[in-house]
Amino acid sequence: MSAKNNSKDILIETASRLFRIRGYYGVGLKDIIEDSGIPKGSLYHYFPKGKEQLAIAAINHTKDIVINEIQELFDEIEDPIQVFQAHLEHLSEIIIKSDNMGFPIGTIAGETHSTSEPIRMACQLAFEEWQAIYRKKLLQSGYDEKQATDLGITINLMIEGAILLSLTNKSNRPLEVAKKQIILLLSKD
Amino acid sequence: MSAKNNSKDILIETASRLFRIRGYYGVGLKDIIEDSGIPKGSLYHYFPKGKEQLAIAAINHTKDIVINEIQELFDEIEDPIQVFQAHLEHLSEIIIKSDNMGFPIGTIAGETHSTSEPIRMACQLAFEEWQAIYRKKLLQSGYDEKQATDLGITINLMIEGAILLSLTNKSNRPLEVAKKQIILLLSKD
Repeated sequence: MSAKNNSKDILIETASRLFRIRGYYGVGLKDIIEDSGIPKGSLYHYFPKGKEQLAIAAINHTKDIVINEIQELFDEIEDPIQVFQAHLEHLSEIIIKSDNMGFPIGTIAGETHSTSEPIRMACQLAFEEWQAIYRKKLLQSGYDEKQATDLGITINLMIEGAILLSLTNKSNRPLEVAKKQIILLLSKD
Repeated sequence: MSAKNNSKDILIETASRLFRIRGYYGVGLKDIIEDSGIPKGSLYHYFPKGKEQLAIAAINHTKDIVINEIQELFDEIEDPIQVFQAHLEHLSEIIIKSDNMGFPIGTIAGETHSTSEPIRMACQLAFEEWQAIYRKKLLQSGYDEKQATDLGITINLMIEGAILLSLTNKSNRPLEVAKKQIILLLSKD
């Protein structure tokens, strides 16, 4: 639990964790209340619009966690191939160590793209922000605008697909394969 | 609706369609009964174990539809780059034409990987069968065993990620980018 141990943060952290593991429709407000120990009244105080509003806060929270993780790697490692491989290696290690890491935003995006426009837009924003920091790194590494944009999208979609396959197969193999194949994508002509 | 218009097939087709759009937990048996027009008694006659059993039948049904689509392309087009691009082009066209194609197996896999071992295994089998036909095509095209296996997994994970991003962004851009980037992966040294 973070240092900012107030009810609102606890609710967002609990919701983020449960949505990652079971998706949006697989988690009820009852589960979040039980798991967090925060009373229903507080939940509706902070999130008067209920589950949808809490989900958007959870998506933004997860988005920021991922951005911080990536940014830390980007500050440490200069080489673009090495840094994206380290990013995939990090995900691969988490998948092995914990069997409940879940799918950060992918499941909720897959469930709600046609049922909740506000949630869909929060998911889109998360994907776009991740792509934007990949793109920035690639631009700094000398890829041109077009390459950096397309590769940013490609790295994002490969990571989403690799997490999904690794969770489904209970194996880090898909993430390891993506880590290796990314060399082919990033090798400059 | 298929020619085999019996209750069991209608249930499987309805369930497949709804699970693709809203995922496993976003669809109740009530929705499937209402949407299919098949009475509850028939549903429990064909699927005595209920929703989980019907979901596995739906996953297998979706798996086979995708296999048939891929196989048709593989029979038509010999060149591996062209055939995988045609596969992505096909998905890209569907995403534009209908806004309720959904995520064939991805959402249900993301939701149930830690909550239903039988469903997780059905999803894993689907992904593995898709990878196996990609692999076979790549072997026939002269890639070695190791390359064909790794590329089969990579194409699978790229397609899953590209569908997810395209649905979330309500745009076929991610599928189009994947279609272009796949050339880098499949170009032989």
